[in-house]
Amino acid sequence: MTSLIKRVIPTLDRILVRRAEAANVTKGGIVLTEKGVERMVEGTVVAVGPGSRNPQSGNYIPMGVKEGDRVLLPKYGGTRVDMEDQKEYVLYREADILAKLE
Amino acid sequence: MTSLIKRVIPTLDRILVRRAEAANVTKGGIVLTEKGVERMVEGTVVAVGPGSRNPQSGNYIPMGVKEGDRVLLPKYGGTRVDMEDQKEYVLYREADILAKLE
Amino acid sequence: MTSLIKRVIPTLDRILVRRAEAANVTKGGIVLTEKGVERMVEGTVVAVGPGSRNPQSGNYIPMGVKEGDRVLLPKYGGTRVDMEDQKEYVLYREADILAKLE
Amino acid sequence: MTSLIKRVIPTLDRILVRRAEAANVTKGGIVLTEKGVERMVEGTVVAVGPGSRNPQSGNYIPMGVKEGDRVLLPKYGGTRVDMEDQKEYVLYREADILAKLE
Amino acid sequence: MTSLIKRVIPTLDRILVRRAEAANVTKGGIVLTEKGVERMVEGTVVAVGPGSRNPQSGNYIPMGVKEGDRVLLPKYGGTRVDMEDQKEYVLYREADILAKLE
Amino acid sequence: MTSLIKRVIPTLDRILVRRAEAANVTKGGIVLTEKGVERMVEGTVVAVGPGSRNPQSGNYIPMGVKEGDRVLLPKYGGTRVDMEDQKEYVLYREADILAKLE
Amino acid sequence: MTSLIKRVIPTLDRILVRRAEAANVTKGGIVLTEKGVERMVEGTVVAVGPGSRNPQSGNYIPMGVKEGDRVLLPKYGGTRVDMEDQKEYVLYREADILAKLE
Repeated sequence: MTSLIKRVIPTLDRILVRRAEAANVTKGGIVLTEKGVERMVEGTVVAVGPGSRNPQSGNYIPMGVKEGDRVLLPKYGGTRVDMEDQKEYVLYREADILAKLE
Repeated sequence: MTSLIKRVIPTLDRILVRRAEAANVTKGGIVLTEKGVERMVEGTVVAVGPGSRNPQSGNYIPMGVKEGDRVLLPKYGGTRVDMEDQKEYVLYREADILAKLE
Repeated sequence: MTSLIKRVIPTLDRILVRRAEAANVTKGGIVLTEKGVERMVEGTVVAVGPGSRNPQSGNYIPMGVKEGDRVLLPKYGGTRVDMEDQKEYVLYREADILAKLE
Repeated sequence: MTSLIKRVIPTLDRILVRRAEAANVTKGGIVLTEKGVERMVEGTVVAVGPGSRNPQSGNYIPMGVKEGDRVLLPKYGGTRVDMEDQKEYVLYREADILAKLE
Repeated sequence: MTSLIKRVIPTLDRILVRRAEAANVTKGGIVLTEKGVERMVEGTVVAVGPGSRNPQSGNYIPMGVKEGDRVLLPKYGGTRVDMEDQKEYVLYREADILAKLE
Repeated sequence: MTSLIKRVIPTLDRILVRRAEAANVTKGGIVLTEKGVERMVEGTVVAVGPGSRNPQSGNYIPMGVKEGDRVLLPKYGGTRVDMEDQKEYVLYREADILAKLE
Repeated sequence: MTSLIKRVIPTLDRILVRRAEAANVTKGGIVLTEKGVERMVEGTVVAVGPGSRNPQSGNYIPMGVKEGDRVLLPKYGGTRVDMEDQKEYVLYREADILAKLE
């Protein structure tokens, strides 16, 4: 993991994802763009928050994804975070993640 | 299950459904299209998430449908996921599933 | 119960109701249509889901209506499910059911 | 209770009320209509549902009104249920009932 | 308490308040009307419901105001209930009450 | 505390605040008005309600501010209560209080 | 911590953040402004509230950030608090904080 990312620790149930380079189809055979229109985002999880909090106890509820997971995300939503390494990162909430890609 | 799907693991209470080939009537006798207008979707569950989470404990609540179930879905809703095998897949939440078809 | 219906198992707190043949007044004396305008629907429960789920434990909460009950429903709402037997079925949530008719 | 009503059993926290004959003032001295404009509805409870459900256990929470209670209701809201006995009945939720009239 | 009111028993967390005769300033020194524009309502509690219900157990949660309390209410909100004694009564929810006036 | 205020007891989680005389900057160095435009309100807590209620037990949850605290409030929100002493009082909910000023 | 800030104690789950001097890129390599358009805010936490409250017990749920943390915040949201030291402070809720920056 580049040291850049090491310094960004998402809060609560947020997840920092590095978007995969533009590709029409993922290794898993999922069609990301169709007739040039991007419909889905594939990416890799680079940092994970502690989780959302139990409103009673305040304990964190561990996340269902971890650093290194490849994930499928909807085209819209998330907060873009640009880094000096020219790659594109996006902050999502755990609930936004559509699926994990093995 | 085709290996393609094996690689898509829905998150939380999401379910990946492969839409049945266009048919006016299901084997179960349900009229899917009426005067050419599609009103319902029949499909087969191909992958199931771990379930929604108990907001207190964080435990997953097991799903009420499983891989291989034939299900009835409303025409609208869900997130389309196209795969290279030219079949059409849709990601739904468990609560969107109208009925199971035996 | 006709075998057709046997194959439709509503999910969660959904209920499959077969609408009674059009009648102005029910056996129970309820006026369903007034000056030709339909205001209420009477029907018979033909299939019942397992119930809604306790958000903590995930257990199903048993339903308050059962197969064979005659019920009163508002004119609007529900998802129509047409079957080959030319009868009209509607999927409702338990909370939509206005009353049971003995 | 007339046998007609006996056959209508409201569900959950619903209450069937027979509207009192049009009167300007109730026995309790409440002004129902003012300058010909109806502002409140007085009625008698004729059937009561089992109550709303505890979202955890599913148990019914007993109602705070019972058959025979005279009640004060807002002019709007409720679902009208006409019966062959030409009287007007309205289905309300318990929370809609403004007050009981002794 | 006049016998009229005795017959009106508010439900749940509702409170029946008799509005104080129009006055610019309360005994407590609160300015109710300003340049002829009424901004606040002072009144006396004449009847109190059993309280809102605990969604789990169904028990009533006792109210924080009681019969005879003088209270300060916002100008808007509440349901007017006119009585034959020509005084003006208003039904409020407990949460609407701004303050008690000793 | 002037006897006037003694008579106003806010309900639930409400707080009665006396607005500080108009000042551009607080003793704490906070800029209240900028180019003549008021952006924040500083005030002193003069009366505090018993607190919001635990929806299960009905117990009051004690407040985080007390009589005499100096507080910072947003410009908008709250219900104005004018008193004969010509000072301006505002009723807020505890959650509206932005900060305490030592 | 400058004595000015010492006197501002955010309430509940609020956090007082001093915005970093305008910079295009943070030390952590995050691009804050792009073509002159500010997209993110970096800042330092200068004061932290006691936390949000458990709706049942009223206990405070300790915060996930502390005084001195460097944090990443969205461009919009928060309440600006200007101080005499000419620096810009913003009050946020804990949930608004996007990430911590080590």
